[in-house]
Amino acid sequence: MHPFDLALQLTPTGTDTYEARTTPDYANMVGPFGGVTCALMLQSVLQHPQRLGLPIALTVNFAAGVADGPFTITARAVRTNRSTQHWIVEALQGGEVVTSATAVTAIRRETWGASELQAPSNLPDPQTLVRLPQGHRLPWAHHYDLRWVQPQNYAGFDNQEHHDSSSVQWLRDDPPRPLDFAALASLCDCFFPRIFLRRHQAAPLGTVSITTYFHADEAALAAQGDRYLMGAARGQHFQSGFFDQSGQIWSHDGRLLASSHQMVYFKA
Amino acid sequence: MHPFDLALQLTPTGTDTYEARTTPDYANMVGPFGGVTCALMLQSVLQHPQRLGLPIALTVNFAAGVADGPFTITARAVRTNRSTQHWIVEALQGGEVVTSATAVTAIRRETWGASELQAPSNLPDPQTLVRLPQGHRLPWAHHYDLRWVQPQNYAGFDNQEHHDSSSVQWLRDDPPRPLDFAALASLCDCFFPRIFLRRHQAAPLGTVSITTYFHADEAALAAQGDRYLMGAARGQHFQSGFFDQSGQIWSHDGRLLASSHQMVYFKA
Repeated sequence: MHPFDLALQLTPTGTDTYEARTTPDYANMVGPFGGVTCALMLQSVLQHPQRLGLPIALTVNFAAGVADGPFTITARAVRTNRSTQHWIVEALQGGEVVTSATAVTAIRRETWGASELQAPSNLPDPQTLVRLPQGHRLPWAHHYDLRWVQPQNYAGFDNQEHHDSSSVQWLRDDPPRPLDFAALASLCDCFFPRIFLRRHQAAPLGTVSITTYFHADEAALAAQGDRYLMGAARGQHFQSGFFDQSGQIWSHDGRLLASSHQMVYFKA
Repeated sequence: MHPFDLALQLTPTGTDTYEARTTPDYANMVGPFGGVTCALMLQSVLQHPQRLGLPIALTVNFAAGVADGPFTITARAVRTNRSTQHWIVEALQGGEVVTSATAVTAIRRETWGASELQAPSNLPDPQTLVRLPQGHRLPWAHHYDLRWVQPQNYAGFDNQEHHDSSSVQWLRDDPPRPLDFAALASLCDCFFPRIFLRRHQAAPLGTVSITTYFHADEAALAAQGDRYLMGAARGQHFQSGFFDQSGQIWSHDGRLLASSHQMVYFKA
């Protein structure tokens, strides 16, 4: 079984409730990698017998560190309309909320469409790029293959302040795994905290809240398969202990699959 | 009393619960203007005796139309840490959830800071610009003074498709009102749905989920007072009945106060 599927395992324990468990594969500095937590919150909706349609929007709030071991997830469909459904999801450990989330699922219909975001273009083949070594001591980073295109030659923590936090990269699960909504939710949290690209120094930090909008449907996920995805991210505003950043994930051939935004706590 | 303060009135009815009421001042096509609903969800947190700190992040999900009249709001502090606090807020009408929200509040501390978003510059004085007439038949639009800088001479619904949905505008409450967090939450929903700027034709639509990140502290709000704010917004991706758009609100002198993102349902 792929380590991501192992991490996503949810055992129903009652109406709306599941037991989940952290796995060592996706351990972060403290607790599990946030992306996998996002995927689990979404998975509790995807796996729910009452689910209508596919994910449109997901907001995950990291309320406290998740300790290694089991925790429970409660997913409630608080409103079901004809074509949209609204969810409130809570993860609890020791009786206390560690993560909260809301999700919207919907039945999509063909309409007029357009995109105003430019996908990165003319990227070098990912196989010709060096895989990112930073953070590789953390288990979760072993399970994402990140290959930066820009900034070139990211020097890590050299304490040189930069004025642009934007990055462009190839990324995918390692080992490769066919893309699905849960994986996409997790990949949206793979962008480095932008303060690292600004200040090139270590800083205590943690995502407080992340919102992901899904533009992909099942056909787009199937067309992507397990190929490398294109990703781009940029910081917006850093002030008084918090900053926000936005990122996008495109298919290998430049179709926007998800856009994501997060607010991050930091000390500096 | 300012109509916005009237719309924000919450009567505590128990631990964590309030009674709210729609007001005709902010009526939209169906139900109240979504910005005021965002403000009310946030207000239930701001007014809560257990609240710690000031707003950092707010996600509001519009699950169903709110009918004219009373409704109840429940605001639960699901986790309180040393410097951050996590909230789940639900609005109910006739026993059913009509709006759900999560909010994060926090005590901010001075840190290193920077901004990567450029504020609009060299805007003409708002008093020299024509106030936007579109939508003025809707009551809520009477209570926002919107003056567009770009696109110039927005022609409304002339059915001419455009390729850029971005806009820059001055905006403030009407009558003018000193800025606070609730007003800022509402102003973040004042940007026109971007599909109107792309297709210049009417379309049934509604915001499904909106997330706002607050960069302003109380000093920044006080410095702004009731002056015009600068706003900019842009659509990202339109597909299969949903599109996302992002917007920013700056102070009169170019300080970023909030960034906001939303996913919108549409028919076209």
